[in-house]
Amino acid sequence: MKKYKKKDFPVWEIRQLLEPGPIVLVSSFYKGKTNIMTMGWHTVMEFTPSLIGCIISNQNYSFSMIKKSKECVINIPTLNIANKTVRIGNCTGKDLDKFERFDLTPRPADLVQAPLIEECYANLECKLVDTKLVSKYNFFVFKVVKAHKATAPKYPKTIHYMGHSAFMTAGKVIRIPSKNA
Amino acid sequence: MKKYKKKDFPVWEIRQLLEPGPIVLVSSFYKGKTNIMTMGWHTVMEFTPSLIGCIISNQNYSFSMIKKSKECVINIPTLNIANKTVRIGNCTGKDLDKFERFDLTPRPADLVQAPLIEECYANLECKLVDTKLVSKYNFFVFKVVKAHKATAPKYPKTIHYMGHSAFMTAGKVIRIPSKNA
Repeated sequence: MKKYKKKDFPVWEIRQLLEPGPIVLVSSFYKGKTNIMTMGWHTVMEFTPSLIGCIISNQNYSFSMIKKSKECVINIPTLNIANKTVRIGNCTGKDLDKFERFDLTPRPADLVQAPLIEECYANLECKLVDTKLVSKYNFFVFKVVKAHKATAPKYPKTIHYMGHSAFMTAGKVIRIPSKNA
Repeated sequence: MKKYKKKDFPVWEIRQLLEPGPIVLVSSFYKGKTNIMTMGWHTVMEFTPSLIGCIISNQNYSFSMIKKSKECVINIPTLNIANKTVRIGNCTGKDLDKFERFDLTPRPADLVQAPLIEECYANLECKLVDTKLVSKYNFFVFKVVKAHKATAPKYPKTIHYMGHSAFMTAGKVIRIPSKNA
């Protein structure tokens, strides 16, 4: 399976990866065990510090692992692993090693214990920084402390969930002059 | 300019519109004045009640209008008005009527005072329900109280911001069986 060659990417630029709205894979580590979940409800919140807000349902096995370890990695998959991405979201890691089951490669992160997924286009190492809305909405605020991005292609073929088993895939990129970074 | 024919859309299904991550236009109304801003940092938060979280910078003129009126409409533009969408984001409504300036049509909403933008593919009427993270992050939580969606096409050509003037446009839609609604 394709493994992207990567290099460090500035954490204040991660809006380039997340703002278009791809479905992501969240990897976690707690007490010797890893897990992966599929997630579509996330938003960039700030450039510096680099903040991401997202919903991790308390119905997910990952919820308590991430709440307790206060860390995760947000990995961005592309079309070539779309089927795996969906199947990961359709089962629980409670009695399963998802890296093994789905033949994905965990790679040690630099600043968190949760592993990077090598087969993903980008990996964002995250620390939990705000839990004020966790109990009411399952809404977590993470700070991206390190980012890794594939050296090519420039524009990844990301997948975007539309509900009811439909996924929009990234289309043509156009340029329109904008004042926004 | 194209105006979509629309019908009511269930508010618990709006993830179909927002989860893929399109850039949106937020319209507001306060003390007799309307405004529009361009926004890319948003996430679905819950099906029922239908919740959306988003960042509205306090640098935007819309910030205080929405904070004070406790309402807005989230409108989803498509490729045919991509240039307008960007230009709306590059100017302030402080001394400008953006509906007039950009030749867009305000239509009365059903449950909020902010106007719908007729030229957009969908319109979500929203009430502000949680301001706990507004002062720290400019993060607003809205409840969608009414939704309108174009009767066609089934999959809109949305635009997705990648930073540095690059916009990903919605590509091909694929189907992968998923347990998730």
